Amino acid sequence: MIVVMKPGASQQQVDHVIDRIEQLGLRSHVIVGTERTVVAALGEKRDGAKQALETGEGVEKVVPILAPFKMASTEVKKDRTEVNVLGLSVGGKKIGVMAGPCSVESRSQIIDVAHIVREAGATALRGGAFKPRTSPYSFQGLKETGLQLLAEARDQTGLAIVTEVMAPEQVALVAQYADILQVGARNMQNYPLLEVAGESGLPILLKRGPSATMEEFLLAAEYILKTGNTQVMLCERGIRTFEDHTRFTLPLATVPYLHQTTHLPVVVDPSHGTGKASLVATMARAAVAAGADGLMVEIHPDPEKALSDGFQALTPPAFRQLMVDCRRVAVAVDREM
Amino acid sequence: MIVVMKPGASQQQVDHVIDRIEQLGLRSHVIVGTERTVVAALGEKRDGAKQALETGEGVEKVVPILAPFKMASTEVKKDRTEVNVLGLSVGGKKIGVMAGPCSVESRSQIIDVAHIVREAGATALRGGAFKPRTSPYSFQGLKETGLQLLAEARDQTGLAIVTEVMAPEQVALVAQYADILQVGARNMQNYPLLEVAGESGLPILLKRGPSATMEEFLLAAEYILKTGNTQVMLCERGIRTFEDHTRFTLPLATVPYLHQTTHLPVVVDPSHGTGKASLVATMARAAVAAGADGLMVEIHPDPEKALSDGFQALTPPAFRQLMVDCRRVAVAVDREM
Amino acid sequence: MIVVMKPGASQQQVDHVIDRIEQLGLRSHVIVGTERTVVAALGEKRDGAKQALETGEGVEKVVPILAPFKMASTEVKKDRTEVNVLGLSVGGKKIGVMAGPCSVESRSQIIDVAHIVREAGATALRGGAFKPRTSPYSFQGLKETGLQLLAEARDQTGLAIVTEVMAPEQVALVAQYADILQVGARNMQNYPLLEVAGESGLPILLKRGPSATMEEFLLAAEYILKTGNTQVMLCERGIRTFEDHTRFTLPLATVPYLHQTTHLPVVVDPSHGTGKASLVATMARAAVAAGADGLMVEIHPDPEKALSDGFQALTPPAFRQLMVDCRRVAVAVDREM
Amino acid sequence: MIVVMKPGASQQQVDHVIDRIEQLGLRSHVIVGTERTVVAALGEKRDGAKQALETGEGVEKVVPILAPFKMASTEVKKDRTEVNVLGLSVGGKKIGVMAGPCSVESRSQIIDVAHIVREAGATALRGGAFKPRTSPYSFQGLKETGLQLLAEARDQTGLAIVTEVMAPEQVALVAQYADILQVGARNMQNYPLLEVAGESGLPILLKRGPSATMEEFLLAAEYILKTGNTQVMLCERGIRTFEDHTRFTLPLATVPYLHQTTHLPVVVDPSHGTGKASLVATMARAAVAAGADGLMVEIHPDPEKALSDGFQALTPPAFRQLMVDCRRVAVAVDREM
Repeated sequence: MIVVMKPGASQQQVDHVIDRIEQLGLRSHVIVGTERTVVAALGEKRDGAKQALETGEGVEKVVPILAPFKMASTEVKKDRTEVNVLGLSVGGKKIGVMAGPCSVESRSQIIDVAHIVREAGATALRGGAFKPRTSPYSFQGLKETGLQLLAEARDQTGLAIVTEVMAPEQVALVAQYADILQVGARNMQNYPLLEVAGESGLPILLKRGPSATMEEFLLAAEYILKTGNTQVMLCERGIRTFEDHTRFTLPLATVPYLHQTTHLPVVVDPSHGTGKASLVATMARAAVAAGADGLMVEIHPDPEKALSDGFQALTPPAFRQLMVDCRRVAVAVDREM
Repeated sequence: MIVVMKPGASQQQVDHVIDRIEQLGLRSHVIVGTERTVVAALGEKRDGAKQALETGEGVEKVVPILAPFKMASTEVKKDRTEVNVLGLSVGGKKIGVMAGPCSVESRSQIIDVAHIVREAGATALRGGAFKPRTSPYSFQGLKETGLQLLAEARDQTGLAIVTEVMAPEQVALVAQYADILQVGARNMQNYPLLEVAGESGLPILLKRGPSATMEEFLLAAEYILKTGNTQVMLCERGIRTFEDHTRFTLPLATVPYLHQTTHLPVVVDPSHGTGKASLVATMARAAVAAGADGLMVEIHPDPEKALSDGFQALTPPAFRQLMVDCRRVAVAVDREM
Repeated sequence: MIVVMKPGASQQQVDHVIDRIEQLGLRSHVIVGTERTVVAALGEKRDGAKQALETGEGVEKVVPILAPFKMASTEVKKDRTEVNVLGLSVGGKKIGVMAGPCSVESRSQIIDVAHIVREAGATALRGGAFKPRTSPYSFQGLKETGLQLLAEARDQTGLAIVTEVMAPEQVALVAQYADILQVGARNMQNYPLLEVAGESGLPILLKRGPSATMEEFLLAAEYILKTGNTQVMLCERGIRTFEDHTRFTLPLATVPYLHQTTHLPVVVDPSHGTGKASLVATMARAAVAAGADGLMVEIHPDPEKALSDGFQALTPPAFRQLMVDCRRVAVAVDREM
Repeated sequence: MIVVMKPGASQQQVDHVIDRIEQLGLRSHVIVGTERTVVAALGEKRDGAKQALETGEGVEKVVPILAPFKMASTEVKKDRTEVNVLGLSVGGKKIGVMAGPCSVESRSQIIDVAHIVREAGATALRGGAFKPRTSPYSFQGLKETGLQLLAEARDQTGLAIVTEVMAPEQVALVAQYADILQVGARNMQNYPLLEVAGESGLPILLKRGPSATMEEFLLAAEYILKTGNTQVMLCERGIRTFEDHTRFTLPLATVPYLHQTTHLPVVVDPSHGTGKASLVATMARAAVAAGADGLMVEIHPDPEKALSDGFQALTPPAFRQLMVDCRRVAVAVDREM
């Protein structure tokens, strides 16, 4: 850490900072510049020290040098993490595709979609059984029945099942049926949930919160990694900005940024990332070009009759076309799909 | 709802929209304009209909007319909600002040702070026992021990206790000790938590998520109200924007906006809202002038040694001054404090 | 427009709205719903009427139906606009690439870069002579000398010259040397500049302001189109959000959105859009996959010695590789480059 | 500046950074930490050096220590700047109020408003003659005629005139009539305009751009100060965020932040800052409580008939009440109005 003193900070204030640094078990190193004094704290610990120092009298700011996450960092683990579940592979040369409806609505709906997904070449089925809905008056999901239907769809198709878990006490139940637990954007910083989900041992798809920085996103992943579960996929699904022509703003630069910063694979969700069916296929292609390790796409046999988020779901033919088009882009960036 | 058709939409597409409106149990009303056709859907339901219609062929957009929340709305309940717990009153003429440390750290710390808070004239004590921390390497709170210390502080001072609850399974425990349950900003859309917290029957302080719209905020409150618990306080604590000189951006216009839109009282947290001790007192005054029904302020006997968020905590003398200054502003806007 | 009345609005208030609509030369049409009355105003004008109506007593909001831009709209002009200048083509099957340094710094620098750009297969040279710099203490450009050097580079290479114009009184001078006038992001809503630049008759590259909505962006283009100049290229260069790992957030969904909304071609600038050299090439590929009609890329023979924005400039070898990689993606989406 | 090397940066890369620092005329100071090497650059220049260093091989980031603005800084000038024009005083104990219509529309409108403004106790009249309008189809102002009417209003009332200037070539004309030149939010980074406006010698009201950071805002002021004109007022008028219930988000914490950072006075515009007449008065009170040195408020004799921005204009009685209410808050924070 670098402690920047205010202009005109007294020697006593500088000495106090030095004392505090040493009490924190760090070494101090003073640099007297032309306009400011700066004190470096060496051997830096990752937490608490920064804020302990920045409340000192005469301190202008404290600049951390080390990233606060460890286990997610490429500095700690050089080789890339690859998640393999049934036929789904995310993080290697092959791009994994998880597709399905926003919500499981009925047996026929989910079974039909599963076959469509499989035939188009995707290898995982997404579908919500426990649904976090902005309004309490909206459809809240089929709950355990939905999980059973997902499991039946897996039995028929061999697709890995990805479904959301919303509370720690749901984890055990959902883990009986699912192959991958999804932690949704609204719950990215629901730490009790991250811990219990991590302890399940199942691969976790962690969605970025709509106002989370990369540091917060990786620290949320760190909560899971700290349980000993190394199977974490990061999912970019759009952030909240002033833009009003899309539901969220999908910042694809997070894909190469995360590839430089962490060994965890990166999935992109162009359905939530745009909130408009007419933009999904194009953004799926862009995500593949940006290096995404996986795609998560909402499809529905009849979007107009969907019980949730129909406006962003692709029809089966549109999804098949997306797969064809994305495969061409994948090849152009030396990937497979 | 108003369904706006695309330019050149066919009669068949318009007819399809009319059919869908009627299948949804609504009445339709067609208006043929110079450049577009618009179909109004009357008798509107609050959920599902909008998205069912906006996926239709030839539909450009669907504009809702009614707000999606009901029980929180001034349209449904005209008189203002007032929360009274021990000496704390929020929502009436008197402005309630909840102050205390970010985290309960030790018996002496919380008992000392409680006396400072009480002597300065505040009527509730805040303090975290279960702490949601961005990093898993940060101090996570004293948990039940922290709750016991808070209860002891109440016994000595008569202050109402406000403390955070992070997961549904913590609610029963926390409710044994606390007078008011706080749902933190990270959990504003943690719906299982909102429901279980609501069912406790205790007053709830619901903090706005840093990227939540007013509609989302009020719908989160609606989850609590729907359990039959009417004691909900809305807390503005800052939103995430591009600004980098404060931790969050504190948008005080939400106070008068919420006063026009909902009967629920509005609390402002200038500590999280700015993230800088040097800005807290001024923003507390501004919040009072904006009509806040309550303030939530972080204080610490020795901010430099705080285990969390010391950079935004006021010292006891600074807090006493804040109370004096805010009282003057309160009187100038016909309130008391 | 649709005028939504407040719940409980009086008949007198509704009648007043109807009168105002008729005074504005529009037809009114009243719809009485279960909870609100709504008045449609037909034959809608594009300006002023909305705000005249929304200040009426008892009016809750006014919802416009028509987009406020005309000449930029695909509703008005169905065929796509193509800009062709010297060898540069933007808006057709071929993707145009404009590359060069942030600032023209010296004769050798710009001539060298021009040859590099040409050899790598790009068809326009960018370079700033008049530089808008955030700080008055930063290098402000070589001004007319810079323009002369750009013209010399064109003479040697045949590349079209794109350079920025910052004020109406600079337009005549810049137009003597440049093939395309760039209006920078900071000046997107500098209307006197848009008008004078438009009147030059040269093609205009209009950069999106970092907090401009699509509607504001297209209305800025409309200022140029209104001068009779139809050669407008829209350039997405990133928006300002809370993200701090990139300089701006590059929202590529604007590319397909604009393709659906306007006939004007869309260029993407991944250099400003990310502000980090290490992310530029990946985002250039993603932009091509998203359907960009052109790319604008900063390169510098020695980024470390650049007088401005070196941190986001590619080296010549990196740029050559970008061209190779983007060409493969272009082919995969049925384009050429 | 502090240059943070990447983990594993080679000695050669560190040496290269040291060389560059010395070539830039700075002194270097190396600190070898447990995980990173850090190189401090002392005697720091305010421009160019940062970016020259951050493009170096092996460099992770460069952290500036000094703020990039000088003349606006409280480090350079300790006493507060006070702007006095006719009866208007901004920056001292008295809070200046500038009120008037968005646009000058007619002789009777502006003369009437001027008398209302004066009688309510405000000391400056605002009104637009050259109007920057988002749409080219909107009313663009009365131009010189508008200026003449403003001057006539001054002659009748003694109010100082504040009006916007949009382009360098308009400055001479506007300066003939106005007492204070306003540089609008869209033009905050229109550097040629800032320079020419500064050279007029008139006091400048500089509005914050809707996505400008404090650093950018102060650097824009620096462009004016550098011309030798010290009469600069900073105006907070709201920023663009995801919030959709107000036109902009008004972040009042900028008031105390600017008071700590610069000696320039700070004006708040609650009309643009909220975009809703029903929120203006409350936010004006909050601005006064936050320490604003001035207020800028839009009023109109008949908002419903305003040619621009009627939705955010106060009626004359509402403005009189605002003045009464704000005066009470001013007294409560030891100011006058």
